[in-house]
Amino acid sequence: MIAKKMVAYVEGSSVTRAMFEEGKKLAAEYGALNVYDFSLGNPSTPPPACVKEAFKDIIENTSPNKLHGYMSNSGHEEVREAIACSINKKFKTSLSQKNIVMTVGAAGGLNVMLKVLLDPCDEVILFAPYFGEYNNYVANFDGKVVVIPPAIPSFLPDFKTFEEKITSRTKAVVINTPNNPTGVIYTEDTIKELAKILESKQKEYGTQIYIISDEPYRELVYDDIEVPYVTNYYKNTVVCYSYSKSLSLPGERIGYLVIPDEVDDFENVVSAANVANRILGFVNAPSIMQLAVARCLDATSDISVYDTNRKLLYDKLTSLGFECVKPQGAFYLWVKTPTEDDLKFVDKAKEFNILLVPGSSFMCKGYVRIAYCVDTDMIKRSFAAFEKLAASYNLKEAEK
Amino acid sequence: MIAKKMVAYVEGSSVTRAMFEEGKKLAAEYGALNVYDFSLGNPSTPPPACVKEAFKDIIENTSPNKLHGYMSNSGHEEVREAIACSINKKFKTSLSQKNIVMTVGAAGGLNVMLKVLLDPCDEVILFAPYFGEYNNYVANFDGKVVVIPPAIPSFLPDFKTFEEKITSRTKAVVINTPNNPTGVIYTEDTIKELAKILESKQKEYGTQIYIISDEPYRELVYDDIEVPYVTNYYKNTVVCYSYSKSLSLPGERIGYLVIPDEVDDFENVVSAANVANRILGFVNAPSIMQLAVARCLDATSDISVYDTNRKLLYDKLTSLGFECVKPQGAFYLWVKTPTEDDLKFVDKAKEFNILLVPGSSFMCKGYVRIAYCVDTDMIKRSFAAFEKLAASYNLKEAEK
Repeated sequence: MIAKKMVAYVEGSSVTRAMFEEGKKLAAEYGALNVYDFSLGNPSTPPPACVKEAFKDIIENTSPNKLHGYMSNSGHEEVREAIACSINKKFKTSLSQKNIVMTVGAAGGLNVMLKVLLDPCDEVILFAPYFGEYNNYVANFDGKVVVIPPAIPSFLPDFKTFEEKITSRTKAVVINTPNNPTGVIYTEDTIKELAKILESKQKEYGTQIYIISDEPYRELVYDDIEVPYVTNYYKNTVVCYSYSKSLSLPGERIGYLVIPDEVDDFENVVSAANVANRILGFVNAPSIMQLAVARCLDATSDISVYDTNRKLLYDKLTSLGFECVKPQGAFYLWVKTPTEDDLKFVDKAKEFNILLVPGSSFMCKGYVRIAYCVDTDMIKRSFAAFEKLAASYNLKEAEK
Repeated sequence: MIAKKMVAYVEGSSVTRAMFEEGKKLAAEYGALNVYDFSLGNPSTPPPACVKEAFKDIIENTSPNKLHGYMSNSGHEEVREAIACSINKKFKTSLSQKNIVMTVGAAGGLNVMLKVLLDPCDEVILFAPYFGEYNNYVANFDGKVVVIPPAIPSFLPDFKTFEEKITSRTKAVVINTPNNPTGVIYTEDTIKELAKILESKQKEYGTQIYIISDEPYRELVYDDIEVPYVTNYYKNTVVCYSYSKSLSLPGERIGYLVIPDEVDDFENVVSAANVANRILGFVNAPSIMQLAVARCLDATSDISVYDTNRKLLYDKLTSLGFECVKPQGAFYLWVKTPTEDDLKFVDKAKEFNILLVPGSSFMCKGYVRIAYCVDTDMIKRSFAAFEKLAASYNLKEAEK
């Protein structure tokens, strides 16, 4: 039979499957156009044209043994060098190919870094609300998750609790900005404050505490807000990047780790990341994807549609009386539920054919996440349903 | 600093790196043409033409959101269905898409299955000699490796020891046929005997013991030898397949798991495999690679070059007095070292610019592995060096 550890996962997975099946059932009953599925973070905008051009050129003009053969577990050296140069240009860093490890998406990168760093019972600090998979990744290496509740209404880290919860066993702090699920971007001051606290705690305990900065949404930013590059503020920072959102390639599993020279124990960390990539079974990031993204380093998918969606939804929902965090980045709207029980609210929304993800899935009850990486038309069609949902809670329409 | 568990890996990795650097040094000193690198299992023959054609067509004619978007963690349904049908046709099985989980190569598949099955201290039986990474994969899930020494000179399983070593904690048995590093193929009788022993032990202990059949070399077979399809002989069999060797795509990380309906606890095993693919950070096998291999199900790279290499090397080395296992499949020659210490033999070979992997790396001292997935010309050029190596051990040339 399956491992005891896996039993709870399988049960959780059948809940998700039930939700998915219910969505299909709703679509069959009411017609696909009358179901408003805001549950998935699957980019709705296609990759930029350079992706297709890159593929065509690579397939035509690269020798097959180079294109499809093994390379270093850290990836093609010229790809890593090109990525390092691109980051240097954008963020005034001093990286070279030795600081870059190509990974099977950010999920691969996170697992590699946690394998590198965690001994059993080492602590990993996570700021709620956060992507629920982090819990599973930490559990893969028998680490212990320490959750810091958010400062409300900013949804920035609560520094006081953060400082209190750091112990001699704290090995890593995961941050994710722009944030899934809140859309919040950490300001430079926030990063500086985090760095100050961590530096003081490292000194107090004589330990190393690594920031793992999970950055799949780095380019999905609105209103020209700046997203500080964390390695410039705290030397024990490792970046996990993914092209899933910026180039709309989530099914291809391609990303990288940045491990700067300044990281404590650099030589061992970088060697261990290379080994971990191998022994976790990734071996290396898919070769053709490495070569493709290296040719699209200055491109992103057209994110203007997300900005349109963001404004439409935020304006509509606040006008209906919902309390929302105004997203600065990513493609999620974080909404306070009018009832404390977010699971009940999600069920209620389903009665109006609106599919949402409860805040509980992000370790933060009393909220829901609306993924607006969808057709703008679907958003417009959903407004009548949101009106009925608001009415069912007697929400008062905001004054126009 | 890095996790304690990772320290030994990093040390091991620097030994490999040192070997690699030494190979480069030799090439610089003597010229690349005068160094005979038989250390890597990297296919030397290009992918069949259908791979390039598949890529071109997919890129031109698939909608980008389908091509690069998320799909089920188990992979594209139509790809899984096509693979199931292809296996059914070849091996008279009764599979459908629900029995197939697309994975990030066989390394991904093995890690998924071990995550699914292993509780800490569960035992996994491995038949020496075997691919050293199996040890790391089992360690990822705190399992315990139980090694069965080979029957010599056949290098088939030693059934008596196998039977003795099965306990109530035995959860899985990994087999790999055609075998890396020996080139041996398990006969139908061997598979039947393994199945008989396992069935009797399952009954004795009231447990389930799964065969994990690691099959990256299934198509690399010489002299028309048959490779039995293990699911047809033992119902608790899961197959880990990879396209790395059959289509020469090792850098792309694409393979699949076969989990037949007959497997005990089927529903949970297949759900857990889907979840494990996600939470280990693979998420799903690279999308474009899934679509590409589905169009090449009846193709393989041209393996005739491996057959040529096999005959050349086997004939030459046996004529020089080396004891070799005649390979029936894969692309490795397994050679008894004339001295008991295989590490010393590898060092001696290096004096003649021949790079080999010691049997110790496969948990089997006193042998070396020669990977003949190389240019045939290099093999011919290496003969003079092998002659000197044989002479240095006073090997007696076999009678012509």
